Amino acid sequence: MPAAAPLSERVLAGDIRAAARLMRDLDDRVAGAIEDLKRLYPHTGRAYVVGVTGNPGAGKSTVVDGLIEHYRKEGRRVGVVAVDPTSPFSGGAILGDRIRMQRHATDSDVFIRSLATRGHMGGLSRSTADVVAVLDAMGFEIVLVETVGVGQDEVDVVSMAHTAVVVTVPGLGDEIQAIKAGILEIADVLVVNKCDREGADRTVRDLTGMLELRPAGAPDVEIVRMVATKGEGIGELAAAIARHRTHMQGSPGGRERLRQRAQAQLMELLQERFADATVRHLAARGGIQALAEAIAQRRIDPYTAADEAASAVLR
Amino acid sequence: MPAAAPLSERVLAGDIRAAARLMRDLDDRVAGAIEDLKRLYPHTGRAYVVGVTGNPGAGKSTVVDGLIEHYRKEGRRVGVVAVDPTSPFSGGAILGDRIRMQRHATDSDVFIRSLATRGHMGGLSRSTADVVAVLDAMGFEIVLVETVGVGQDEVDVVSMAHTAVVVTVPGLGDEIQAIKAGILEIADVLVVNKCDREGADRTVRDLTGMLELRPAGAPDVEIVRMVATKGEGIGELAAAIARHRTHMQGSPGGRERLRQRAQAQLMELLQERFADATVRHLAARGGIQALAEAIAQRRIDPYTAADEAASAVLR
Repeated sequence: MPAAAPLSERVLAGDIRAAARLMRDLDDRVAGAIEDLKRLYPHTGRAYVVGVTGNPGAGKSTVVDGLIEHYRKEGRRVGVVAVDPTSPFSGGAILGDRIRMQRHATDSDVFIRSLATRGHMGGLSRSTADVVAVLDAMGFEIVLVETVGVGQDEVDVVSMAHTAVVVTVPGLGDEIQAIKAGILEIADVLVVNKCDREGADRTVRDLTGMLELRPAGAPDVEIVRMVATKGEGIGELAAAIARHRTHMQGSPGGRERLRQRAQAQLMELLQERFADATVRHLAARGGIQALAEAIAQRRIDPYTAADEAASAVLR
Repeated sequence: MPAAAPLSERVLAGDIRAAARLMRDLDDRVAGAIEDLKRLYPHTGRAYVVGVTGNPGAGKSTVVDGLIEHYRKEGRRVGVVAVDPTSPFSGGAILGDRIRMQRHATDSDVFIRSLATRGHMGGLSRSTADVVAVLDAMGFEIVLVETVGVGQDEVDVVSMAHTAVVVTVPGLGDEIQAIKAGILEIADVLVVNKCDREGADRTVRDLTGMLELRPAGAPDVEIVRMVATKGEGIGELAAAIARHRTHMQGSPGGRERLRQRAQAQLMELLQERFADATVRHLAARGGIQALAEAIAQRRIDPYTAADEAASAVLR
C-alpha cells in the first residue's frame, strides 16, 4: 500500500502507523480525518469492547494486562484504549502504573493507545469511540477500554462498552465505598482484586448484598475473585465476560444497550457541531469571550444571551 | 406578598417557600421558571460563592458545617448547595454525612438545598448556577457549594465558585493521591482536615511540594490545617477564603475567572437549547431512538447521521 493512499485504505490494510496517524488526526480534528472514519465504518462492528474501571489503586492495569495475555494465548488480536485524565500534577504518576502493560508493546497483535481527558465539547467518549472504531476496522477482535479514575466522564466511557468490568479491592473502608457505589450500577462483571488481602470475603459479601438491593429483574452481575499480580482469576474473568457476551447477544437488553450507545455517540457528535457553529456565529460579534464578559459584567443575563445565540444559530 | 404574585417577586421579598418552589420548577424545567430567573438576575452578583470539594471521607460536610456556623456568628446569611450524585445504591449513605448540617435547618438565615446529578444535557453545573442565582437574589451573602465526589462534573461545579476549597486528610496513601491530584489544580485554598491524625505533617509537606511543582507565576494557594470536628482551624479557613477574595477582587485573574464562569454557563445553556431543538427535529422522524437504532444496526454511520441532523437543525 503506497503511503499516498488514503489513510482509511492503509488502516484497512493493517498499517499500524497509518492507524496511529489517523487517531492523532481525529484527536486534532484535522479536516478529512472524519471522512476516513466514515469510510472505515462499514468495516466495524466486529470488535468486542470490554470496559474496565474501578477505584484508583484497585489494580485495573494489572487486570487489563492479564486479559491481554489471556486473549493473546487464544490467538486474538487485542486493542487497548487507556483513558488517562492528564494533570500537570499527576500525569506521570498514573502512567507509571502502565509500565507492566508495555511488555506487549512489541507484539504487533496488541495495539495500545492512551487518551487524555479532553475539554467538554466533544469529549472523552467521542475520542474513545473514534479510537475503538479504528481498532475495530483493523480487525482487533477484543478492545479493552481502561479508565484511570471513576468520574462521570469515565463512567460514560465504560458504559459504551459491550461488557463493563468494575474492579475493586478489599478493605477500602466505608468512605471509599461511596465512590464505588456510583460505578456499581454500570458493572456487568465485578472483580474483587487482591483477594489475598484480609477482608476479601467481607467485600464479596458486601457487594453481593448491594447487588441484592437492586430492583427485581435487574440483570445478573457475576463477582470474580482475583489476585491479578499472580494471574489468579484471569481465566474466570474472561469466562464471565464471555458469558455476559453470550447473554447479551441477540437479547433485548443487548440490543437496547447498543442503541443507547449509538444515541450517546450521536449526541456527542451533534454537540460538537453545535459548539463549532456557535463559536463561528459569535466570532463575528467579538467572540464568545466578549459575550461572556458582558454576562460577567451583568450587562446581559446568561439566559437571554443563550436565547439570542440559539435563535441565531438554530433554524 | 400574595401567593398569586410572580415567583420572582415573592423570592425577592424573601419568601423561602417561593424560593424552594422556583428551584424545583427550574429543576423540572417548568415553563416560565426561566423567566422568573431572568427577572431575578439584576438582583444577583452580590453573593460570594465558595466551592468545597475533596476526597470522600475527608470531612467536607463537617468543614461546611463549621463555615456555616462561622459566617452565622458574623451575622451573614448563608446558602448551601449540597451536590449529591444520586445512586440507587449510595444515595442514603452519602446523605447520612449531612446529618450534622441539619441542625441549621431551623435557622431562617441558612438555606440548604440538595442537588442530585442530572443527565448530560444541561447538567449539574447549570442546576447549581440556577440555585446559586436564586440564593444570591434573596440576599444570601455567602453561598457554599459542596460536592460529594471528585468527578469531572463536580470539579466543574466547584470551578464556578469564586473561591474553591479542596479538603483532604492525612494518610490516604499514594493511590488515592492520584484522584486528589486532579482536583488540586482547581484549589484556591487547600485544607488538610483531621490533622490530629498521624502523618499530617507529611501530607502538608507533600502538598507544599506539589504546589511548588507548578509553573512559575501560578497563583498562591494557602494550606490550612484543621480538625473540623473540634472546630479547629475554621477561623483560619475563613480568613484564608477572605484573603483569596480580596486578592481576586479587581485583579485580572479574578475578572478572568468571572468571565470563564460566565462562558461555561452560557455554553451549558446553549447545549440544552440545542438538545431540545434536535429532539424536536428528530421527533417527526421517529425520534432520536429510531436514528440511534439505525446507527446501532449500521444502516447509517454516526458521523453522517450527525451531519444530517446538524444541517437540519443549524442555520
